[in-house]
This record gives sequence, structure tokens and C-alpha cells, in this order.
Amino acid sequence: MKLKFSVVAIVLEVAMIILFGYFVEYETEQINLQQPNTTNSTKVDRFLELHSLFQDVHVMIFVGFGFLMTFLKNYGFSSVGINLLIAALGLQWGTFMWGIVHNHGQKIHIGIKNMINGDLSTATVLISFGAVLGKISPTQMLVMTILEIAAFVGNEYLVGEIFKASDIGASMTIHAFGAYFGLAVAGILYQPSLRKGHEMEKSAYHSDLFAMIGTLFLWMFWPSFNSVIAETGEKQYMAIVNTYFSLVACVLTAYAFSSLVEKRGRLDMVHIQNATLAGGVAVGTCADMKIHPYGSMIIGSIAGIVSVFGFKFLTVYHGHAGSCSRFFHRNGSCWRADHRFNSQVHCPWTTI
Amino acid sequence: MKLKFSVVAIVLEVAMIILFGYFVEYETEQINLQQPNTTNSTKVDRFLELHSLFQDVHVMIFVGFGFLMTFLKNYGFSSVGINLLIAALGLQWGTFMWGIVHNHGQKIHIGIKNMINGDLSTATVLISFGAVLGKISPTQMLVMTILEIAAFVGNEYLVGEIFKASDIGASMTIHAFGAYFGLAVAGILYQPSLRKGHEMEKSAYHSDLFAMIGTLFLWMFWPSFNSVIAETGEKQYMAIVNTYFSLVACVLTAYAFSSLVEKRGRLDMVHIQNATLAGGVAVGTCADMKIHPYGSMIIGSIAGIVSVFGFKFLTVYHGHAGSCSRFFHRNGSCWRADHRFNSQVHCPWTTI
Amino acid sequence: MKLKFSVVAIVLEVAMIILFGYFVEYETEQINLQQPNTTNSTKVDRFLELHSLFQDVHVMIFVGFGFLMTFLKNYGFSSVGINLLIAALGLQWGTFMWGIVHNHGQKIHIGIKNMINGDLSTATVLISFGAVLGKISPTQMLVMTILEIAAFVGNEYLVGEIFKASDIGASMTIHAFGAYFGLAVAGILYQPSLRKGHEMEKSAYHSDLFAMIGTLFLWMFWPSFNSVIAETGEKQYMAIVNTYFSLVACVLTAYAFSSLVEKRGRLDMVHIQNATLAGGVAVGTCADMKIHPYGSMIIGSIAGIVSVFGFKFLTVYHGHAGSCSRFFHRNGSCWRADHRFNSQVHCPWTTI
Repeated sequence: MKLKFSVVAIVLEVAMIILFGYFVEYETEQINLQQPNTTNSTKVDRFLELHSLFQDVHVMIFVGFGFLMTFLKNYGFSSVGINLLIAALGLQWGTFMWGIVHNHGQKIHIGIKNMINGDLSTATVLISFGAVLGKISPTQMLVMTILEIAAFVGNEYLVGEIFKASDIGASMTIHAFGAYFGLAVAGILYQPSLRKGHEMEKSAYHSDLFAMIGTLFLWMFWPSFNSVIAETGEKQYMAIVNTYFSLVACVLTAYAFSSLVEKRGRLDMVHIQNATLAGGVAVGTCADMKIHPYGSMIIGSIAGIVSVFGFKFLTVYHGHAGSCSRFFHRNGSCWRADHRFNSQVHCPWTTI
Repeated sequence: MKLKFSVVAIVLEVAMIILFGYFVEYETEQINLQQPNTTNSTKVDRFLELHSLFQDVHVMIFVGFGFLMTFLKNYGFSSVGINLLIAALGLQWGTFMWGIVHNHGQKIHIGIKNMINGDLSTATVLISFGAVLGKISPTQMLVMTILEIAAFVGNEYLVGEIFKASDIGASMTIHAFGAYFGLAVAGILYQPSLRKGHEMEKSAYHSDLFAMIGTLFLWMFWPSFNSVIAETGEKQYMAIVNTYFSLVACVLTAYAFSSLVEKRGRLDMVHIQNATLAGGVAVGTCADMKIHPYGSMIIGSIAGIVSVFGFKFLTVYHGHAGSCSRFFHRNGSCWRADHRFNSQVHCPWTTI
Repeated sequence: MKLKFSVVAIVLEVAMIILFGYFVEYETEQINLQQPNTTNSTKVDRFLELHSLFQDVHVMIFVGFGFLMTFLKNYGFSSVGINLLIAALGLQWGTFMWGIVHNHGQKIHIGIKNMINGDLSTATVLISFGAVLGKISPTQMLVMTILEIAAFVGNEYLVGEIFKASDIGASMTIHAFGAYFGLAVAGILYQPSLRKGHEMEKSAYHSDLFAMIGTLFLWMFWPSFNSVIAETGEKQYMAIVNTYFSLVACVLTAYAFSSLVEKRGRLDMVHIQNATLAGGVAVGTCADMKIHPYGSMIIGSIAGIVSVFGFKFLTVYHGHAGSCSRFFHRNGSCWRADHRFNSQVHCPWTTI
């Protein structure tokens, strides 16, 4: 048992080094066959230009996702620590897989785009991580990271390159995919004997404040997340502005409906930590389109409302739908990432 | 009671969506009458150029102000949570009000400047928020946000456009205005029966560490705050450099005088959390002028000293000026934002 | 005693103001003798171009180093608070010393490079700070800051300008220098009576989570640290990419070996907080060279392993090498910054 994790981690890292040795080169080593007018200095300029958006996304991955899940007081270390482990593996494997698939098996030339796609692949795994936190061992997480990113890259290639679907903020390929994948794994790992593990999932005062660090860094930098893979220029500008206004509108409706559905009109920290982010996910698919600021605000407002109702609706089932409510409680952090699917997803899983 | 907050929040969000639908457009839709040589790509370049300074200010608003006020152990959730709510409303209303006033009722074209001014309007409300934390309901906060930003934009238009006063870091229009507004509201809300509420205002070990997160993000990014609305180029360079040196000098004098005025030379966390920021506020008005690095350091040094003395001077009144000292204790977080006015403000309020 | 700290701090700040008054000017005031084709606007462009990398390093200094050391539950305030004090003095003194030495006593023209070098000088002192935390008074820290930065700048001038050694990430001049300097000071300050102070050094659940804030901000922004003084363009691109891949590889081996050396395969938070950073230090010296991504990953992997073994090896001595193990426990935070020297440094200090 002790050896298993160490051996798996070392084998994976050695494999990454071998794969990178054979397939990955600097961007500046690329022979310019396709774009003969792109010099090395143009590439490097582009690298530094996108670097600050990339850093925003990087902070979301490590601080945002890492601290978001510290709200469970007994999983504080696990969530921040395992988050870092998964992300470190995910960045390498995601960079490689995405590069190999999109370059059709040719050498990968590491630029800012590859590093961004590494981060996005990792985000998918971290969303699924929320669904299985506390039920899965670090070794299983490493294996899941490898499998899920392979599936994600394949799916993303299909959606983006074959179907040519527009999904700039990757709401479908990242958020929906990550949430469903996590639920599927959680379903497989489900053990009825774990049912009384509820008390481990309580939150505490300080753990909720730590979770707010995660929420805020995700909330603030979501416009960068939705715009970082957009075409530079007008599209990128629109993706930033639209996401920004969707997020601010979402906060107001999330608070309003949180107060409405809770006893004595009190705000629920779980809604504040989660539903406020729904605006970023909801606008993701069309963030680079001309939906106008008020359009973004309408999308964000609805996302905030749906998200709070999703949470509440599931809690209603708490008493009489044992395993399901337990399941959804466990999955609190999964829903944080993609609340819009609450109602649909709820049904298939009531039978577990 | 329960309905009131939800209804107010929803009505406000609907109003924002309607106002934005009528008045707000993308910057790239603007017909270039005034600046015929500005193409869309120039505007978008400018957007991305200022985007990283904007993100710094954004972090100050949400993480900086949000966590700064978590030092009161019973108001941790309130401060971070309500901070997010107010800021989300303030960004929308501030963007609209500022745009309408400066465009004389014409359509607003959303660029990075509008978004920055939204953040600055919000900062004003968050400074006032410190004065009323624990005494005001979320519903009242929403109403106060609407009123204060309207007053702020009017005042800022008067100072900047009519009087043509120089106030690059907005020390007068934001910090002084926000502090006085908050004190006025707190005075109106004052109830003698609340006097024994003191124990709610205690800080705890961990809550003080959370507050340091707020302090540090405010301190580090203050040069961006003071330079973000400066003219690009030399003025912006000077605003960054001057604020930077004012802040570092301020830390040393704040620590020195904190140790001097406290028993047995111990440092007071309240001074560390607050007085270290006085340097940023103090240099704000003249940050883009040629005051030289040593000039900034002198301004910062004096700000640190005045701020610590302000805190200490007020505490002296603790015993024999009941309501006032209580009042000022409550207002700890107000003073964090603008310490230079301690002594002046102290007087008018002794009569409460 | 009470006066001593205040007097030293005030005298130092007054000295800084006088030195800056005589020697420091704006970059835009520089008469262009050496580079006649560099106009003011070119300089200012360069300033803003490097500003976002500079901000990353700034966050590392204040949030990264500050929170990294909060893992000792009784030193939370000291570490964040004194970190801010030292850094504020270090930035001023480092900017001055580095400028005077590199300009051969001529006037210093403050640009982004000077501000970056101020941050790097400060990093050296903060690494040493880890070794003496809890054993040194704030007054002594101020004096140590002055002496160490003077020594650092002299050493850095020798290594970089006279020997022309390559050390882009400053692994030798900053990390090794800082670690040894701290150990030397700690050795001088060593008092056998402090031996039973062990219980003060315990970490607590929440303090470990605060320390993770420091770890993550250091980890995420280390590529900026290693690239910020590189030549702009291809060198900077390589320094970012190489450090990035060294860091991700390091996380996997650090976790694998942490699990291997600990009882029942559990992960040790101390390893997670520290060894994960070894990859950034290890690749520092050669980060801007063409070592290829897989080369960086090999360097990072080895750094992770060596770092964990360093920690474990020292703990083995816990029982029978009293002062030394005590010493090294105290110095936990020193090792966080430079683990590669564990084994060498261990020997000279067993005799204390």
C-alpha cells in the first residue's frame, strides 16, 4: 500500500520525462514551414503578451480550486495538497496529450498556447476531483488524472475540430465533462458502508473563510479563463467584458435567492461560495460573441438563480432519498463548478 | 424581513439590466466621431495593455478589502460575503453612473477605463462599509451603495471636471469621501443600546492572520491603484514609483511608532494592518507629479506616524468619551482606509 | 529596550531618505550619454512591459515568504509582520546598494530593473530570516538586513560582474547565500537554554493551511522569479518554460518520496510545503539555457528527491544529536528555501 503510491508517481514522472524527451521542443526551435513569416521574436512577443492572462488561470488552478474545497474541515490538507499533486501531473500529461492530438503525432513546440491548454485539461480533472474527494486514494487520483485527460482531449478534439462547435470558455468540454466524469467515478466507488461518514463533511468557521479565498480568486480571474483561448483582439476583449458582467449579475441573484430559500432569510455560505461562480460557467460557451453587456447580465442572473435552486432542490431530497442526498452532499464541491446541470444530473443518480 | 432583501436585490439587478440594455454598448461599436484615427484594434490593444493593472485593482477590491475586515472574529463571513455583494452591485452601478455623467447622457462604450472607474466607485463604498459593519443590514447596504456611488460620481465630476483639481490616486474623492460618508451613516444608525456590543468586535488569532491577507494584497497593489487612471507613459511610471517608495517608507515609521506608543514596545497588529497602508493614501493626490523618490518617502514616513498617533489618540478617549470611543472602535476598519483624517474627524464626532 | 527598536527604525528610515535624496533620480531624468537612442518613452514602455513579472515577484516576497513561515502556530504574526518590516527596509536598502555598486557611485536612475533587484536582495534576507525566526529581536533583524544586503550585493557583484558566472535565477547568490548567512547568524545567537522551546515550534491545522498560501504563491510565480532578470526575448521565454517544467516534475517526486519515507505511506505537510519548491531553486542557475523541457524535468525530479531525503536525514539525528536536530527543527523554514544544501550544511553544524 505504502509502496503503491510512490511507485505509481515515480513511474508516471519517468514516463513524462521520456515522452517529453522524444516529442517536446522549444517553440523557438520550430522550422517555419506553415507560417514562414513568423519569426522567433514574434512568437516570443506573443508568449509574453498572453503571459499575464496565463498567470491568472494558473492562480485559479492552484489557489482557486485548491482552496475552494477546504470548506470541508477534515479535508483541508487533502484538498490543497492533492490538488497540487493532480495539477502538477495534469499539466504535463495535458500538455503532451493536447499537443500530440492537435499536431497529429508531430513534435510539440511548447508555447503559451500549450501551457494554457495544459491548465485547461487540469481544470477538468479538478472539477471531477470535487465529486470524489474523501472517497478516493491519491494513487487512484493519479490514474484517474491520466484517464480523464486522455478522454477530455479526445472529446475536446471531437467537439472543437470535427464538429466545429463554439465553446470558447469551454463550458461544455471542461465543466460539463468534468462534472459528469467525476459523478461516474464516484458512482463506481460508492460503498453503502460509507454512508455514516457525514460528520467528516461538515464545514467549520475558519475552513469556510479559507474556501472564500478559493472562491474569490476563481471569481476575479474567470474573465481571463474564458478569454485566454479566444482569438486575440476583439474576440478576447468581448470574452473578458461578457464574462465580467455575467459574474457581477450572478452575485446579486445568487444572494437574493439564497436569502429567499433559506430559513429566516439568512445567506448560506455554500451558495455564496458556489452560485456566484455559475455566471462564469454559464456565459462560457458564448463569451466571445456579440451578446451585449445586458445579454451577459441576463445569462449571469439566470445562472445564479438556477444554481441556488439546484442546491436547495437537492437538499429537499435529503430525508427520503438516502444514498442520493448523501451522494450529493459529498459532491458539494463538484456542483460548485457546474451548477447548471444539477437538475438533469439529479435524475440519473437517484437510482444509485 | 426575509423578502425585503431578496426583493431589493432582484429589483436592483433588473434595473441594472434595463439601464445597460439602453445605455451600454461595446467599445468596438463606437462610431469614431471624436477620435477618427482610433481604430478598433487600437482600442483593444489599449484594453489589454491596461488589463494587468486593472486586475491588480480588482484583487484589491475583492481580496484586499474583503479580507481586511475579517479581523473582527464574529464578522468574518459578513465582511468577505457582503463585500462581494456590495462590490458586484457597485461595479454595475458605478460603471453606469460614471459613464452617464462623463458622457453627458450619451451611450456608454465599455472599455477598460469604464471598468476601472467601476472599481474605483466601489472602493468608496467599501471604505464606508468599514464604518457601518455590524450595524447595518444587507438591505440597507444595497441602498447605501446606490446612494453613495451617485454622490461619489457627482462629487468626482465636480472636483475633476469643474474644479480641475489634481487627485490622481483619488485620495480626496475616494478615501476622504468614503470615510466621511461612512461616519455620517454610522452616526445616523447609532443606537445607545448597542453600546455593550463590544465583545463582538474582538479579534482572534486566526482572524488577524486572515486580515493580513487583505492588508498585503492592498499594500502590494497600491501602486497599480494610484497609477491606473494616470496618463499612460511617464505619468504612469511616476505614479507607480512614487507610491511604491511612499509605501515602503510608511511601513518603517508605522512599526517604529507602533512600538513607541504601545506598552513594553510591542507591535500592535491593528497598526500593522492599517498604518502601513497610509503611505499609499497620502501620496495619492500627487502620485503622478515629479515629487522625487525621496519626496515620496518623506510623505509616506509622515503618513505612517500620523496614522499610528491617530489610532492611539482615539484610544486615549476610550474611558471618558463613551459613545465616541465606542464609535471609533467600531470604525476601526474605516480608519484603516484613511487615517490622515483621524484628528480632524475626531472632533465633530465627540458630540454624538 | 522599548526605545531601541523605534530609534533604530527611525534612524534607518531617515538615512534612507537622505541617501535617496542625494543619489536616486527618476529614470526619465537620465541624460542619455551611454544609450543615445533610448528615449524616455522606450524606457517607460520597457517599465510597463516588465511590470507584470515584477508584480509576480512582489507577491512572492510579501505573500509567499510571509505566509510560508506561518506554519509555526506561535509565530504567525511574527512571520507575516516581521516579513513585511524586513522587506520594506530591504527594498530601499537593496535598491540603493545595488544601484551604487553597479553604477560605480554615480546617480541611480530608478527603473524596473532597480526595483526588481531590490526585491531580489530582500529575498536573500527573507531566506535567512527562516533560520533565525523566534531567536532574534526585530531590532536585530533590522541590523541583519542592512549587513546581509551589503554582503549580498558585494558577493553578487563579484560572482556576476567579475567572475561572469551564469546564475540567472540567482540560485547561488540568493538561495545558497541566504541559507548560509542565516545559519551563521543562528549559530552565533544559539543559547542552550532555548533548547526546550520546542513546543513553540509546533504547527497546527490552520497554521499549516496558511503556510500553503505561501507555498502556492511561491510555486506559481517561481517562473517569473527565474526569468525576471533574464534578457528579454528568447532567454526570458526559456527561463519561464524551464522553471515551469522543473517545478511540475519536482511535485511528483517530492510526493512520491515523502510517502516512501514516512510511516504508513502518509504524506508529510512539511515536504509538501517545501520540497515542491526545490525544483525552482535547482533549475535557477541554468534556467535561461537550452536544457530542453525534459532536461528541466530531470533537474526538478532530482531536486524533489534530494529535498525530501534532506528533511528525513536530518530528522534521523533528532534523538542523539540534540542541539543539531533542535537547530535544524528551528530552521525548518530556512530549508524550505534551499534544500539542496541540507547534507553539506548538516556536517559543519553538528558541532554546535
